[in-house]
Amino acid sequence: MPTSLIKETDVDVLVIGAGPAGVMAGNALVKAGINVRIIDQRPVKVMAGQADGIQPRTLEVLQSYGLAERLFKEGNQMHMAAFYNPSPSGGIELTDRVPDVTAPSARYPFEVTLHQGAIEALFLDSMKSMGVEVSRPITPVSIQVSDDAAVLQDPTAYPVRVVLKNLDPAVGQHDTEIVHAKFLLGTDGAHSWVRKMFNIAMEGEQTDYIWGVVDMIPDTDFPDIRNRCAIHSNNGSCMIIPREGDKVRLYVQLGAQDAIDSVTGRVNKNKFSPHHILEVARKSFHPYTFETPKEFDWWTLYQIGQRVASKFSIHERVFIAGDACHTHSPKAGQGMNASMNDTHNLAWKLAHVVRGWADISILKTYEHERRKYAQDLISFDKQFARLFSGKPRTEVNQDGVSHEDFIRAFQTFGGFTSGIGVHYTESAVVQTKHQSHASNLIIGQRMPPQILVRAADGRPYELHDLMPSDTRFKILVFAGNTTVPQQLQRVRAFSDQLFGDCTAQGDGLLARYVPEGGDLFTAFEILTITAATKMTVRLDQLPKSLRSHWSKVFVDDTDPANRHPAEVYAKFGINPEGVVVIVRPDGYIGMVAPFDSITDIDSYFASFMKVH
Amino acid sequence: MPTSLIKETDVDVLVIGAGPAGVMAGNALVKAGINVRIIDQRPVKVMAGQADGIQPRTLEVLQSYGLAERLFKEGNQMHMAAFYNPSPSGGIELTDRVPDVTAPSARYPFEVTLHQGAIEALFLDSMKSMGVEVSRPITPVSIQVSDDAAVLQDPTAYPVRVVLKNLDPAVGQHDTEIVHAKFLLGTDGAHSWVRKMFNIAMEGEQTDYIWGVVDMIPDTDFPDIRNRCAIHSNNGSCMIIPREGDKVRLYVQLGAQDAIDSVTGRVNKNKFSPHHILEVARKSFHPYTFETPKEFDWWTLYQIGQRVASKFSIHERVFIAGDACHTHSPKAGQGMNASMNDTHNLAWKLAHVVRGWADISILKTYEHERRKYAQDLISFDKQFARLFSGKPRTEVNQDGVSHEDFIRAFQTFGGFTSGIGVHYTESAVVQTKHQSHASNLIIGQRMPPQILVRAADGRPYELHDLMPSDTRFKILVFAGNTTVPQQLQRVRAFSDQLFGDCTAQGDGLLARYVPEGGDLFTAFEILTITAATKMTVRLDQLPKSLRSHWSKVFVDDTDPANRHPAEVYAKFGINPEGVVVIVRPDGYIGMVAPFDSITDIDSYFASFMKVH
Repeated sequence: MPTSLIKETDVDVLVIGAGPAGVMAGNALVKAGINVRIIDQRPVKVMAGQADGIQPRTLEVLQSYGLAERLFKEGNQMHMAAFYNPSPSGGIELTDRVPDVTAPSARYPFEVTLHQGAIEALFLDSMKSMGVEVSRPITPVSIQVSDDAAVLQDPTAYPVRVVLKNLDPAVGQHDTEIVHAKFLLGTDGAHSWVRKMFNIAMEGEQTDYIWGVVDMIPDTDFPDIRNRCAIHSNNGSCMIIPREGDKVRLYVQLGAQDAIDSVTGRVNKNKFSPHHILEVARKSFHPYTFETPKEFDWWTLYQIGQRVASKFSIHERVFIAGDACHTHSPKAGQGMNASMNDTHNLAWKLAHVVRGWADISILKTYEHERRKYAQDLISFDKQFARLFSGKPRTEVNQDGVSHEDFIRAFQTFGGFTSGIGVHYTESAVVQTKHQSHASNLIIGQRMPPQILVRAADGRPYELHDLMPSDTRFKILVFAGNTTVPQQLQRVRAFSDQLFGDCTAQGDGLLARYVPEGGDLFTAFEILTITAATKMTVRLDQLPKSLRSHWSKVFVDDTDPANRHPAEVYAKFGINPEGVVVIVRPDGYIGMVAPFDSITDIDSYFASFMKVH
Repeated sequence: MPTSLIKETDVDVLVIGAGPAGVMAGNALVKAGINVRIIDQRPVKVMAGQADGIQPRTLEVLQSYGLAERLFKEGNQMHMAAFYNPSPSGGIELTDRVPDVTAPSARYPFEVTLHQGAIEALFLDSMKSMGVEVSRPITPVSIQVSDDAAVLQDPTAYPVRVVLKNLDPAVGQHDTEIVHAKFLLGTDGAHSWVRKMFNIAMEGEQTDYIWGVVDMIPDTDFPDIRNRCAIHSNNGSCMIIPREGDKVRLYVQLGAQDAIDSVTGRVNKNKFSPHHILEVARKSFHPYTFETPKEFDWWTLYQIGQRVASKFSIHERVFIAGDACHTHSPKAGQGMNASMNDTHNLAWKLAHVVRGWADISILKTYEHERRKYAQDLISFDKQFARLFSGKPRTEVNQDGVSHEDFIRAFQTFGGFTSGIGVHYTESAVVQTKHQSHASNLIIGQRMPPQILVRAADGRPYELHDLMPSDTRFKILVFAGNTTVPQQLQRVRAFSDQLFGDCTAQGDGLLARYVPEGGDLFTAFEILTITAATKMTVRLDQLPKSLRSHWSKVFVDDTDPANRHPAEVYAKFGINPEGVVVIVRPDGYIGMVAPFDSITDIDSYFASFMKVH
């Protein structure tokens, strides 16, 4: 076919792979108004099985995109974890029941389990409502990236050229398409084609742990079948993850000899069956019984590789995310969460660059933040997998893993496994200098949830709901007690200097970051939290930039029905003289600054935003 | 036109009038699988203005039909009430800000304001999703009810004959239809045609209070424009109800001379305009200012009649509900709430009778319960209107209404205005004999909300969400501490006697009320709350009737994340030896019984249910 007949398309961002990382990216970018194309080689979306639970932090992230409500309706909630260990009388016995999540600040102190297809559907339906669907079945066949430094530095250029092939037989000979993209995102899984095309190495190693996984509606007398369970028996280890409806997933540890093909050295699913996995599980569950179900909903075998890609990007034009850059054990339920949070981290940065708001250098912070996280994840996974797969400590095996060891690890790592404790270190978008002015808000961690009471109508509001993932930086002005004249004076002076009259032409310091045709609120949301009470607050005295609408001001007071305490300033450790907390578009705290450090605020934004 | 060409239809229930009372009834009956026809003479539904706020109890009721979530999204929440009184310096000043709702047990401690059309749309869309739409524009022209006692006693007979006329000109000469109904419900408003056809008198009187109402987006410096406000000035009284979006409603007291037509003695809307109403309001608001808005969203004039129909039913075959049987002032925001709760009360009783589950005599409890409520409402309205319309107490007017008088009334009546305190007295469906066994659960009031922790998975659940309006009686078995062998023995004995094996053929006492082809769960939901803890609970030891599914058993313990206290038994004053609480399908407590009063439970159901 002559080249002239081949379709050529320009897109801002081409996403290859519509798994959890890909659809999170696609939805976020479409929502941000970016021209994005998402392709996937599978003809239809995943229908059952696969990835597990959604962690508390991921729930917060989904909520920020307006997607959590449906997830809560469709999914199962895991609130409790139970631990079983060898019983003196043989078999296993209940040792403990503890919270499934150890993360006191989590907005949602539980995990949600739901099959991967239903989770992806949240994003697919959201994108569809905005007019974008995944193109499938389409596979990439070649890729080229310009090596011209000037082109690579120009955010309006299209340095990535990808040839795509449509796998749908109905398409016939017009199956080839060339896409020119400003940016490319490879979210194409553990065997990533994108990663391989750029010879990015996976660093780390394969483990000897092999696990069998079965989904089914169980018929059992085991008492904790609706709790997450860790079962350590003298006959093997097992994990239970209750799922949507009456379904349950079993993770069963298998011996290498059972599941490895001696010729290839790889897991051979053909040698196994879900019946076989259940048979192994039964040995751990004694004296409790599991009947063979009428059908298995899904099943698979895993051999765990604990690996991280050596780099996450080529020239900040091609990125890999999700399983394409880290693989690890499924037992802590991290996989899908890590993947979605990769692209949640990247999407707003891409949007800012494509729009011309941020310098292209901001994209370096993606690898900086997410590769470190991936390495921490592998290191956690190694420790946890060792404890999990180890023999339990018993009278006769004093070197085994004790319940105390295990539960200590389970709870110590709670911040990590919940996703709540994820901490991004100093970079262009994380500035830790003034940490002491909000001593309990950890710069680089996500802004914690907090009920605030709205000044104008006393309505209690969750702060997280005031900070949707809309690509805007949220500037939280903790104004101190604005009923005190001197403090009010400080607030006015600060606000005039930073915001001015909120126009692009105004004399506020932030005016120079305002994109063309917009005002301050195009790029920034400004929320005010005063230490005044419901009774004493005077909205009309605040500078207009701090009350652009009556709904933007909050007090540090109980709600009228007295169901939430007045605690914001104390809980966050906020300096009552006035502090600004800058929350990044992904919900992470980028900076804290006292009112007299206004030039530091300017420097923060100057380090990655373009001046107009 | 010869009679033979006139269309004739049979329906279980004909509802005349698709206002709030009518659509509540329609939706509830359709949901219950009843063959219902709803007609309305308006060609389209209401689009703006009209009724006000949804009270806390009505929010609970809407939630029980799965309709609250959308309401919360679309409506405005009123959490705070502000009071303004004459200032010594002239004009008005802020006296107090208090909770809008005084009802500690309310699940939702606020009111929601939204225009009537959007509220009706919740029900209309819900019905549409079940395949039923309102027939309009249709008006009834004649009605006959059989006076044959045998027919009236036969729930399968169609003693009501209504001739309908289609007002759509496109229908032409085939505009007449005859409907034969088992039951008829007149929810056709204050000028009810149904009421007039049966010469049902309205008892009570017209008042002299005349109010002007305007909806608009205000431009004002008044600080409490987003709170419910009661303004008592020396120049008149005013009320503010903030609404959805940025809209606000003003209620303004008018002089009779301004608004009454001297010839007819009736309110004459033609003599008035929204500008005129705003002009009167401005006098009360001084020194605060109200600019004239670009447009008024809606406006009207009210003259308050405080009247209750002398009866609510003809032979328990024709019923009137809502404004058709009670009219009162709009200021306490009761109108739409009273109307919807009328038919919420009636719908499940009608469903039980139409299905043949309950004796037709149960329908007498509708008038018993709702007419008393309407009378209480009028008596409250009289007191409240007097306080509201009275001149404020000032230096020169020592006989005026003081702020203390007013706020005392506002809070004293909180149980009433919130709807939470509504109390149905002894009847076939309310049996108060064993009140002392659950001393803090008031028999005849609605079952309060309560977070319970599910035994199988530690998930905290709101009890209200376990008791949807699905026409089933909810049998809450407070089983005491089931880890104590003697108590477990008592529970088993009780359960065997009352529920047996839960089949229609079983030897449980309730078996005889099980409808043909069903089991116990067709008519009853059985939920168990044990005083065991998350750690000690043993589901497998409970009799199967008390754990028909793993999701039906709850413990009196904190949730795993420790966000809700262990308090159920203490808070409800439950006798730890075991108590059954029977909650009616509309959420009201019908009966409490200790385990040794099993025959009283049987007598309760025998007093209105049919034995099969």
